[in-house]
Amino acid sequence: MLMKAAAQSLTEQLASHFAERIRSRLLAGGARLPSVRQCAQQHQVSASTVVAAYDRLLALGLVEARKNRGFYVRETTPAQDVLARAATHSGANEGPPRRPIDATALMRGMFQGDSDKPQPGMGVLPPDWLENSFMPAAVRRVAAGTADFSRRYGDPAGDPGLRQSLSKKLAGLHVHAGPEQIITTVGATHALDIASRTLLRAGDYVMVEEPGWAVEFARLEAMGMRILPVPRHADGPDLEVMARYCEAHSPKLFVSVSVLHNPTGFSLTPGSAHRVLTLANAHNFYILEDDTYSHLAPEHATRLCVLDGLQRTLYASGFSKILAPGWRVGFLAAPLALVERLTDTKLLATLTTPALLEKALAWCIDQGQLRRHSERVRERLDQARARSTKLVLAAGCRFASEPAGLFGWVDTGVDTDALAQRMLDEGYMLAPGALFHANRQPSSLMRINFANAQDAAFWKVFTRVRAGAS
Amino acid sequence: MLMKAAAQSLTEQLASHFAERIRSRLLAGGARLPSVRQCAQQHQVSASTVVAAYDRLLALGLVEARKNRGFYVRETTPAQDVLARAATHSGANEGPPRRPIDATALMRGMFQGDSDKPQPGMGVLPPDWLENSFMPAAVRRVAAGTADFSRRYGDPAGDPGLRQSLSKKLAGLHVHAGPEQIITTVGATHALDIASRTLLRAGDYVMVEEPGWAVEFARLEAMGMRILPVPRHADGPDLEVMARYCEAHSPKLFVSVSVLHNPTGFSLTPGSAHRVLTLANAHNFYILEDDTYSHLAPEHATRLCVLDGLQRTLYASGFSKILAPGWRVGFLAAPLALVERLTDTKLLATLTTPALLEKALAWCIDQGQLRRHSERVRERLDQARARSTKLVLAAGCRFASEPAGLFGWVDTGVDTDALAQRMLDEGYMLAPGALFHANRQPSSLMRINFANAQDAAFWKVFTRVRAGAS
Repeated sequence: MLMKAAAQSLTEQLASHFAERIRSRLLAGGARLPSVRQCAQQHQVSASTVVAAYDRLLALGLVEARKNRGFYVRETTPAQDVLARAATHSGANEGPPRRPIDATALMRGMFQGDSDKPQPGMGVLPPDWLENSFMPAAVRRVAAGTADFSRRYGDPAGDPGLRQSLSKKLAGLHVHAGPEQIITTVGATHALDIASRTLLRAGDYVMVEEPGWAVEFARLEAMGMRILPVPRHADGPDLEVMARYCEAHSPKLFVSVSVLHNPTGFSLTPGSAHRVLTLANAHNFYILEDDTYSHLAPEHATRLCVLDGLQRTLYASGFSKILAPGWRVGFLAAPLALVERLTDTKLLATLTTPALLEKALAWCIDQGQLRRHSERVRERLDQARARSTKLVLAAGCRFASEPAGLFGWVDTGVDTDALAQRMLDEGYMLAPGALFHANRQPSSLMRINFANAQDAAFWKVFTRVRAGAS
Repeated sequence: MLMKAAAQSLTEQLASHFAERIRSRLLAGGARLPSVRQCAQQHQVSASTVVAAYDRLLALGLVEARKNRGFYVRETTPAQDVLARAATHSGANEGPPRRPIDATALMRGMFQGDSDKPQPGMGVLPPDWLENSFMPAAVRRVAAGTADFSRRYGDPAGDPGLRQSLSKKLAGLHVHAGPEQIITTVGATHALDIASRTLLRAGDYVMVEEPGWAVEFARLEAMGMRILPVPRHADGPDLEVMARYCEAHSPKLFVSVSVLHNPTGFSLTPGSAHRVLTLANAHNFYILEDDTYSHLAPEHATRLCVLDGLQRTLYASGFSKILAPGWRVGFLAAPLALVERLTDTKLLATLTTPALLEKALAWCIDQGQLRRHSERVRERLDQARARSTKLVLAAGCRFASEPAGLFGWVDTGVDTDALAQRMLDEGYMLAPGALFHANRQPSSLMRINFANAQDAAFWKVFTRVRAGAS
């Protein structure tokens, strides 16, 4: 695993190796690290490299040295401290800290994957799927202009040209939002963050679909919100559960991935959409509709905000799942009466967003490049899904939901937390089912990325490791 | 003021004209808008344009129609509602809402200034001062590469190359921070936001210098923090006041612009820095050092984190005041033990930041372009400050602090809120003193930008309008 020619020193690589496992709880609190000699042998490095790496872990507060007994994982890491602290609401001593989820730790791991192996746990398309000549051309084209926009903060709501393009693009999904209803953001994540910060305050109740995207749970917990998990079914959220929550807690917001839900791939039906909106009107909560996977779905898929006309829905989306994760361009479309408050929140958080990348994206949209590229990606994903589905079934797993979109929700038959730890040692990062629950709990499910799960070699290792685990 | 050829329709321009005044409270709650006929005459537009603009203001909830009596500014605007709501801490009914400050409204105004007149109220250098050929070249150079980084999320802490460059650059200020202690952000604003979100939770006490930057007050209030304003003197913050706060409230954080403080231009002395750090150690609070104006100050200026060695200080800075406001690149340098928590907060807020612009900035730093450019800007600013200072004194104003850096803190002798309203009608945006206080209160002070205050025409209008006001 460790590479001499890498940008990081061997010490740094080794420290990262352990830090990653500790932070993601794959190495539990109280676990003993291998002895310096064992570790040096295992990773084929010198003893002094191991000592230096362990020292780094000590400095990070991740491990503690016990005299004459070696190094042990600290029971509570600093990161867990802060998340736990953040998760206790409002008042200074209001009940015990909730158990934090470690979504960000696992995400850091996902981002840092330097592996050249396909990673079925990843949440994005492989970079080579996104390869094209129009993105660099768009940047060069925009940068070749007078570039005055780089020397100004720009419009707080975002580049006017991009907002115009997005307005037209949304009309194609039957979402009618004028440019004045659109705010650009640093990716869809920032859009969701801005909406939550604007609509909620610490202690508020918020309904979130479960299973659901770990970062959403983690963000709301860190902001001190009280999360009400709503079971997600094939046709939409569980309305009975929602109705009970409404009676008991008067939640302020419902966060929903309506189309190609992460991780199940479910898409909302029109009937369910209507009932959700009726409930929202009766109980006066807002809906934050996360359409991150928009470009992988058919245009006619049912969005809540189409039925609602952006009256009490806020629509968040971005381009990381189809084009340019590294550009970090996303947006919010919102009821006109909320736009000013949302813009204020954006100002307080980042002032403005980079006009250069927004202008480049607008060009990609306006020239039809994004549309053509999306069609190609969807076709390729259909093929990958067909191949991956066969491999999943051949490996003796079953689907917990009908394969659709980018992700498969797969039942492995064994505990996927333990499985993920073993697979990490083989160089594979899984996305265990526990990650998609508000309160991390054992699960035999895992999320796979169809684009990254076509590799027979992975499934061979998976089958072997799982056999050892069960 | 309204322009037929502008990108916005006349209706939109007119609506914005009033919205801006209402949001910044230059038109107070309860005030009556001009009649449709008066307004049409005054702005030389048709009555139907005025009606459409008033309708837009109605839709935004900024005004209300009173039957047969015309349009009136609503007593509480939606934006004020949310800020007031956010400012009440934690619990549902914990005391009355605090009076919100309207910093974001004034900032929106500053951003939207399409005027070609020099604007002494603005917070940034004029775009033509930032003109150069190396920035577009850097972007083209970076974009001409394989651009694989656009197709990945990138490192959660930020581009490794930029963090390396920043580490070297900080060493020049005697701030010793390894690349692993640095996190890139969407401008310095985002750096301050991430630090606050990581270190504080709703209800915490936080000390902030006063006068100070309005956005800092507004952000902390929106997050539900309890602000303790610390008078800022020429040598540093008022230590007696800080000591009393520490005894009474155990604040968690002190936010300080140590060098070229906004708006006074004061820079911290070494003795004061030492005493602040001693207090921080005794009372166990963190210090968030905002060095936004770093590039306009001498390298040897006293920074808290230099004395402290980044033990309990977090250092935030960016490049908007010297190079590229539109690129939105800033950073945090922090104690190693906090880096992981800060990175988690960044992940939850924006996942990552755009590598393309970070790489372009790294190139500008590494090639020495930023250093040479900064030297040129500092020289030009010295000349502008000398000229502007003469004009300020000639206009019968006096300086409340010794002119230094970008901003002058000027006593006009009259209420600057009222003055700002009148000057807006002349096409000039002022930065009234009340904006720099945690609780907006009447002030005869205003902040001027030396680079934008060299225009005799402005001072002529200013003198005339002030004479009418007093």
